[in-house]
Amino acid sequence: IGSRRRETCRGDTWDCRPPDVVVWPRSVEEVSALAKICHRHRLPIVPFGTGTGLEGGVGAVKGGVCFSLRKMDRVLDLHQEDFDVTVEPGVTRKALNSYLRDTGLWFPVDPGADASLCGMAATSASGTNAVRYGTMRENVLNLEVVLADGTVLHTAGEGRRPRKTSAGYNLTNLFVGSEGTLGVLTKATLRLYGIPELMVSTVCSFPSVQAAVDSTVQVLQAGIPIARIEFLDDVMMDACNRFSGLSYAVSPTLFLEFHGSEKSLEEQVTITEDITRGNGGSDFSWAQDAETRGQLWKARHDAWYAALALRPGCKAYATDVCVPISLLPHIIVETKKDLTENRLTGPIAGHVGDGNFHCLMVLDPDDPDEVQRVHQFTERLARRALSLNGTCTGEHGVGLGKRALLQEEVGPLAIDVMRRLKATLDPENLMNPGKIL
Amino acid sequence: IGSRRRETCRGDTWDCRPPDVVVWPRSVEEVSALAKICHRHRLPIVPFGTGTGLEGGVGAVKGGVCFSLRKMDRVLDLHQEDFDVTVEPGVTRKALNSYLRDTGLWFPVDPGADASLCGMAATSASGTNAVRYGTMRENVLNLEVVLADGTVLHTAGEGRRPRKTSAGYNLTNLFVGSEGTLGVLTKATLRLYGIPELMVSTVCSFPSVQAAVDSTVQVLQAGIPIARIEFLDDVMMDACNRFSGLSYAVSPTLFLEFHGSEKSLEEQVTITEDITRGNGGSDFSWAQDAETRGQLWKARHDAWYAALALRPGCKAYATDVCVPISLLPHIIVETKKDLTENRLTGPIAGHVGDGNFHCLMVLDPDDPDEVQRVHQFTERLARRALSLNGTCTGEHGVGLGKRALLQEEVGPLAIDVMRRLKATLDPENLMNPGKIL
Ligand SMILES: Cc1cc2nc3c(=O)[nH]c(=O)nc-3n(C[C@H](O)[C@H](O)[C@H](O)COP(=O)(O)OP(=O)(O)OC[C@H]3O[C@@H](n4cnc5c(N)ncnc54)[C@H](O)[C@@H]3O)c2cc1C
Ligand SMILES: Cc1cc2nc3c(=O)[nH]c(=O)nc-3n(C[C@H](O)[C@H](O)[C@H](O)COP(=O)(O)OP(=O)(O)OC[C@H]3O[C@@H](n4cnc5c(N)ncnc54)[C@H](O)[C@@H]3O)c2cc1C
Repeated sequence: IGSRRRETCRGDTWDCRPPDVVVWPRSVEEVSALAKICHRHRLPIVPFGTGTGLEGGVGAVKGGVCFSLRKMDRVLDLHQEDFDVTVEPGVTRKALNSYLRDTGLWFPVDPGADASLCGMAATSASGTNAVRYGTMRENVLNLEVVLADGTVLHTAGEGRRPRKTSAGYNLTNLFVGSEGTLGVLTKATLRLYGIPELMVSTVCSFPSVQAAVDSTVQVLQAGIPIARIEFLDDVMMDACNRFSGLSYAVSPTLFLEFHGSEKSLEEQVTITEDITRGNGGSDFSWAQDAETRGQLWKARHDAWYAALALRPGCKAYATDVCVPISLLPHIIVETKKDLTENRLTGPIAGHVGDGNFHCLMVLDPDDPDEVQRVHQFTERLARRALSLNGTCTGEHGVGLGKRALLQEEVGPLAIDVMRRLKATLDPENLMNPGKIL
Repeated sequence: IGSRRRETCRGDTWDCRPPDVVVWPRSVEEVSALAKICHRHRLPIVPFGTGTGLEGGVGAVKGGVCFSLRKMDRVLDLHQEDFDVTVEPGVTRKALNSYLRDTGLWFPVDPGADASLCGMAATSASGTNAVRYGTMRENVLNLEVVLADGTVLHTAGEGRRPRKTSAGYNLTNLFVGSEGTLGVLTKATLRLYGIPELMVSTVCSFPSVQAAVDSTVQVLQAGIPIARIEFLDDVMMDACNRFSGLSYAVSPTLFLEFHGSEKSLEEQVTITEDITRGNGGSDFSWAQDAETRGQLWKARHDAWYAALALRPGCKAYATDVCVPISLLPHIIVETKKDLTENRLTGPIAGHVGDGNFHCLMVLDPDDPDEVQRVHQFTERLARRALSLNGTCTGEHGVGLGKRALLQEEVGPLAIDVMRRLKATLDPENLMNPGKIL
């Protein structure tokens, strides 16, 4: 249990809530049998994927039983011609993609961390590729779910995998994003995509946040099917340079990736370069072969660790607001001012093509004043996003820390509806209690 | 009421169930006030968009009050830079697109009929463009809903329109596809897309169903971002030729459309032509300017009327199964055999890029034997789709006629969960009773 205890803490900056017991079921039958025991004894059930969630979702705030799903790690039912696959809940994004390596297919949703695909479904995750390929909401076709009483639900019917359906209520998307509060996901049927003929990545730095974000908006308006468009601010670039021994300009920067055939890439890149130059962007630095692209994206994916390395011994917490894209420059500029005024370390990295960005708050957990300032800052930031018709969480979920903000975001009736749905499916409040609502 | 009576019947082949009263509210406040009256008096509420639904969804099987929403027809809150717009429930697809004409934006989901956008949300509609742009599930960002008790819910929070969110349960997609059984949709916030630089349409005929569908699968596998890929069988082509005075080959045919820049179109078309030729397809006949494209698609969109014209005085009913694409040739071939064996008129048209196709059953409603044969045929067809891991309805919804099939499709526990959700949101069963469940 000792080592699990650490794991269940990973995502939760503020507190560590170990469960009373951890179980490692190997099959849906075992999950169901265990859930029935928990149900009989009124024990909370806390599903655990890979523990990379950032909102304390796996904290056992009411004790109970942690269902670690990593021993259920088989890839089932790959249908190459139909672009779909079914996975058990312990299969991670990287494991699936290496399984798929020789098929010409891949699963593009990429939260950076090597998260479990069912954990990703549970948090409605997205990440760098969502601007092109959508989030988990758009890419889950069916789910097998063990409900609080141990019964086994197939959200779209057992084994069904049509690419679209209008058959009754969309139960699949009720469970996507439910953060373990409605049931344990024990299987997910996912959409796959053909691996593009070519992928090219580039980095481009800008004189200002406005210039970088204006470029993003214009790229989208030009209808360029950009695969990734990621923003890093000057502070984040500085941190990445230090952490990874790089020498990028310390200014607002876009990391971009284009997918397609040679001709289509040429065109996408030409138009994009026109746009970025028009906004005072630097020349592109390129990466085409898998290795160089890997290095380039490693810098982006290591942003979290680079931020942490700014202040050794500190902890990090990522904010996650998302606003309509035209409002991004405004909110990012305001937010950077807020950070400076409040003497906070919060390098910014964002999936700006979706209007989503993170301040990676690095703080000393033993400094109550700083903890307090970070807390107030994150609330101000979330309210700023709400005042711009945005959301307090674009992809990390509500978990423990954003329950009050969720209420402000959706209003009392929507909260009431969510509570009623929860009570309908889990009347004893055994499934991951204390989360979301 | 006389003329409304006809309207409420349009979608329902088998039966006509007029409501006791029709109301034409002009605002959400009026919808809410009227719903409260219905709630107090336990009167069923039947939402009515444009009545183009094909599953008898607007039939008032328990009488009650039909809420016709066509007087709420304003386009609200267009945000060009953010690619979103909010519409009242009387706004139709065509009305929105003409409103958008000068903005460079459009809303692509296209069920052929000029349906209301909230009606399309209610049925989880899709149509010809879904293979590229998704269905209503992927394109609704937020909904305003009047619940059975007259309270007004905003599924993602009032006014919110981030492109993605992980904020609590996905209420938006619970109401998308709910066919009026959970509430009256009084506003929808939709995703918009940039109008592509160029659109080119073509028609290509094939020696066999297998050849046409194999081409479809290969086009998708080649990663071509095809905008439309529609299949019409020989019987359907013959009907279209007769109805619209055309002279297409009477054989299995694909109607295709490509969207993009000149270069990207060139490439898409070249690869597609290679694929279709490899499968014995004819040379492409082309349409590029809006008018010629319009004519070409008119033939496709008139398929319903062309089918009806095969037997004047008869009625039509469209089946709507959807299967994994690799199984399409098999099911279409089997289904054509079944049609012939049972002496039924059922030309086939389908959104084959999604694995979805319709038999447009033309039948004499006064011939009980034929009615019976059609009924048995549609059940066999649905079960054939279910046996291939598909769905009995890809886009039309369950309505009245497919309730038993829905049970077979999703199983008793999913039905029970759907029933519990319905009971939670509409405990008196006032919202469009008798549909879906
Ligand atoms: C460095 C780093 C970068 C990240 N970047 C991104 C990003 O760009 N985009 C993004 O979306 N996220 C990002 N994340 C967050 C995280 O990777 C995602 O939230 C991921 O989806 C969590 O998956 P997991 O398997 O680790 O879930 P866990 O952390 O194990 O659990 C998360 C929540 O889901 C529930 N859950 C997990 N598995 C199941 C299941 N099988 N059934 C029911 N409920 C379950 C848990 O109870 C918990 O509430 C990042 C995390 C890190 C550490
Ligand atoms: C020729 C023809 C071709 C078609 N092709 C396609 C196709 O390719 N793809 C496709 O998906 N569909 C197709 N359809 C079906 C139809 O157009 C769609 O089902 C459409 O979404 C119905 O919209 P409507 O506004 O007409 O809804 P209605 O027919 O008025 O209602 C349909 C259902 O939705 C409910 N509803 C309507 N408005 C609301 C509201 N505001 N709030 C709550 N509930 C509401 C009704 O109660 C009913 O249950 C076609 C129809 C025709 C006639």
